[in-house]
Amino acid sequence: MKTFILGLLICIPPGHLQAQHDEPDLNMIKKIRQEGFNHSQVMDLAFFLTEASGPRLNNSPGFRRAADFTKNKLSEWGLSNARLEPFGEWGKGWELKRCYVAMSAPYYKPVIAFPKSWTAGTNGLQTAGVVLLSIGDASDLEAYKGKLNGKVILLRRIDSLEPAYEADARRYSNEELKEMAKWKNVEAGELNKTANTGLQGKGYTSAHDHNEKPKRPGGLSYTQLKQFAREEGALAILSTNPRGRDGTVFVQGGGAWAGSAAENFPDLVLAYEDYMMLQRMAQRRIPVTLEIDVKTQFHTDDLQGYNVIAEIKGADPKLKQELVIIGAHLDSWHASVGATDNAAGCAVMLEAMRILKTLNVQPRRTIRIALWGGEEQGLLGSKNYVRQHFTDTATQRYNAAGDKVSVYFNLDNGTGKIRGIYLQENAAVQPVFAKWLQPFTDLGASTITLQRTGGTDHLSFDAIGLPGFQFIQDDIEYDSRTHHSNMDSYDHLQPGDLKQAAVIIASFVYHAAQRNEKIPRK
Amino acid sequence: MKTFILGLLICIPPGHLQAQHDEPDLNMIKKIRQEGFNHSQVMDLAFFLTEASGPRLNNSPGFRRAADFTKNKLSEWGLSNARLEPFGEWGKGWELKRCYVAMSAPYYKPVIAFPKSWTAGTNGLQTAGVVLLSIGDASDLEAYKGKLNGKVILLRRIDSLEPAYEADARRYSNEELKEMAKWKNVEAGELNKTANTGLQGKGYTSAHDHNEKPKRPGGLSYTQLKQFAREEGALAILSTNPRGRDGTVFVQGGGAWAGSAAENFPDLVLAYEDYMMLQRMAQRRIPVTLEIDVKTQFHTDDLQGYNVIAEIKGADPKLKQELVIIGAHLDSWHASVGATDNAAGCAVMLEAMRILKTLNVQPRRTIRIALWGGEEQGLLGSKNYVRQHFTDTATQRYNAAGDKVSVYFNLDNGTGKIRGIYLQENAAVQPVFAKWLQPFTDLGASTITLQRTGGTDHLSFDAIGLPGFQFIQDDIEYDSRTHHSNMDSYDHLQPGDLKQAAVIIASFVYHAAQRNEKIPRK
Repeated sequence: MKTFILGLLICIPPGHLQAQHDEPDLNMIKKIRQEGFNHSQVMDLAFFLTEASGPRLNNSPGFRRAADFTKNKLSEWGLSNARLEPFGEWGKGWELKRCYVAMSAPYYKPVIAFPKSWTAGTNGLQTAGVVLLSIGDASDLEAYKGKLNGKVILLRRIDSLEPAYEADARRYSNEELKEMAKWKNVEAGELNKTANTGLQGKGYTSAHDHNEKPKRPGGLSYTQLKQFAREEGALAILSTNPRGRDGTVFVQGGGAWAGSAAENFPDLVLAYEDYMMLQRMAQRRIPVTLEIDVKTQFHTDDLQGYNVIAEIKGADPKLKQELVIIGAHLDSWHASVGATDNAAGCAVMLEAMRILKTLNVQPRRTIRIALWGGEEQGLLGSKNYVRQHFTDTATQRYNAAGDKVSVYFNLDNGTGKIRGIYLQENAAVQPVFAKWLQPFTDLGASTITLQRTGGTDHLSFDAIGLPGFQFIQDDIEYDSRTHHSNMDSYDHLQPGDLKQAAVIIASFVYHAAQRNEKIPRK
Repeated sequence: MKTFILGLLICIPPGHLQAQHDEPDLNMIKKIRQEGFNHSQVMDLAFFLTEASGPRLNNSPGFRRAADFTKNKLSEWGLSNARLEPFGEWGKGWELKRCYVAMSAPYYKPVIAFPKSWTAGTNGLQTAGVVLLSIGDASDLEAYKGKLNGKVILLRRIDSLEPAYEADARRYSNEELKEMAKWKNVEAGELNKTANTGLQGKGYTSAHDHNEKPKRPGGLSYTQLKQFAREEGALAILSTNPRGRDGTVFVQGGGAWAGSAAENFPDLVLAYEDYMMLQRMAQRRIPVTLEIDVKTQFHTDDLQGYNVIAEIKGADPKLKQELVIIGAHLDSWHASVGATDNAAGCAVMLEAMRILKTLNVQPRRTIRIALWGGEEQGLLGSKNYVRQHFTDTATQRYNAAGDKVSVYFNLDNGTGKIRGIYLQENAAVQPVFAKWLQPFTDLGASTITLQRTGGTDHLSFDAIGLPGFQFIQDDIEYDSRTHHSNMDSYDHLQPGDLKQAAVIIASFVYHAAQRNEKIPRK
């Protein structure tokens, strides 16, 4: 019996014992809501991060403008140690300086196109014929030897556009949220298995797929193909994907960005409808002339990568060495201004800090904001930051400094409001977050799921055993339109959603900073 | 009692008496279905009308290529008298020869833009600042005097983009079709009232709105504004509309096209997201530089407008002078290749003729196909054709030649399959079409509604008292994406739907040609 009771006590996660102390501070929440809803600056912040700065491809001038703006804004608000902190050698900056593509014969038609990042230009306006390649494996390239000089290359596609019977924008239904909340912890030993509920939405592309080298059927890689195209004197290679449609184009990277990397072959993504038109013309043997003028610029003056860091210093002598960290990534892809990926998250995190600072909160723990660089190339800013500051190299778990980190909160699933939080299978934190979320039920945020979610910077903390969390957000048009596309623009931001997220995060951060204990580890 | 019975007989429309003779020829329908579904050429025809020809703005080179293709194809199939028939002086052809717009400072961003048709170019690549005009009435222009030289003009907008919670594509539900079928005839004297069921979909733009001169608040017309812009030496005026989003831009005409008309001021429609970015930059007083290079070409070698006409001659000596006419409009707007508006209708009507010719049908009446020019400028091709051939000038009703027209069938509501037919309040024809539709219930076409529908060429026949009908078609993406936009492209065509439509129309045409009587008039 005693043994049984002892066993029971051992099984109860520490969070349960703490939960009675986690009653939310309703007076503070009232103030946060008033500031966050009635005096919001989140859309101003979003404007300066997006349209005023430009595309924020890592290490590009747009990224630097946004980083400088952010650092200055944080200083202006009175945060401590606002700085651009290098996270190690990263690579070349790159920006688009000109992009014009059109079909000029047999008649004129503008083409919507974007070069992949870190690709070379065309050395001015070129006119070129089109060659449609139909390739199984490397041996099929032989047939095209001597035929590609000065040409633009297409690869034959066999897909087609289906009518869009599903809406581009959606919010989670109550039923979906209930399903998420029911999700049970996986067995011990399966902790690395990612939850797959299908609720993340179709077509979700993780941050890690940018550099994939898709194998052609038969094993020819895209890199081999581009090598062949270069050797043959081709002008550029074009591609597309039916995920982008109606003028929306999804575009990522076109190869290596390291300081020592060779320039990547010109490689453009076209609107699906334009690409397929060129393919059909080629299949019908109707001669086509393209006009193509792409100018790109590489920046090699500073190959370091940077995160933007600032703090509200803790006021409790016993706890001020401990950290509550909030973050989002500052870098973006380049075909638009990265509004939902992830100026939205940055603006919300900045706004949360502004709210707390405006309310003159004196937190017990130090609250740190970290806006990461290099997320789109593999969470590089946060990974390196966590490695440099918090990781025991031998064990790859958190070190003594890392032990001072109570929790990390991340926001990076678009513009959608917060519907709850993913626990990353950390059951012990469930009763804590349940109490903290309760005051926001009226704002639609009430779901706590044990599910893991992936694809962004909380994983860097989670990887060394620190509590790192991403909120559940409504998808809105993230998967269908904005995520890594030319439509990731300011007009696709939802002001009401961003205000809600800033209010909830300011409250979570405040409560994490005031809590007697750190957030329990898994 | 007798009187009552007599009254009853008088009240029964002639169609009811005929209905017993309108049993469909199931053997012929079987052949039509086999040819239309198993040997369809409808997508080949659509390709040649769209991507092989180019945009088919009336009297443009693209229109002429499509007209020539069509005429030759009809001749090749063995139809009689395939010809381009002039319908009177129409005006200038116009085509786009170059369109490049980008923001080049404070950073580079390509802009999706199209000039309105019949507008002038920019005389090469220009760089220009942007001026945002906020204008109530003409007196407000004073404030901008001397400030617009070499500038690009924006007009302040106060709308915003809402998330797209409704799908772009849709088909009629059974409930909607049932509602349409229930629709009752309006009172006598209200026959000109257009049915407004809301089922046509939001945002439907009639063929007649191209030339509207929207009044600015306070009464300043767009024409006055352009006049002021020209006098002040402005480079161009830009506009947008939130109906176009995600890279889709809806673009129509930018002024007069008459042979004697002056050149219209450069006038471009931008993607909503791009336009609003420029507006926000201007509102924040962030200096912006635009690169803009628009080249347009006017064609004045032949100011006549043309319809394409051909026939399968009737074989019944008594009836061969009578006509069953099918049509669709060949012209389009210019920002894409007019695939759903209305290459779809043309390809279906051509395919219907091909099916009948392939089956070596010997119709009793003559079957005529008419592909109209100038529809987008006000049904001009069909109106003039009907006026020249079938109209009594004094009464504005059909004349003796018009009396030989049994019926006109039109298809011009996009790529969607046929779900039934609008009777244009001609109750007498209901039992006839009910019999003719019955064999196509399995293809989703079974709804007959007394409703009128507008916006296209059957109105030209209806206007003089001849039976002219447009089929009920699923909307698919017509209102949301394709109708008068840069996305009216081949990939948005639905092959299965076009095959279905061709089969049903071939059958309707056949039965109309074989029927003992002409289709009853209203």
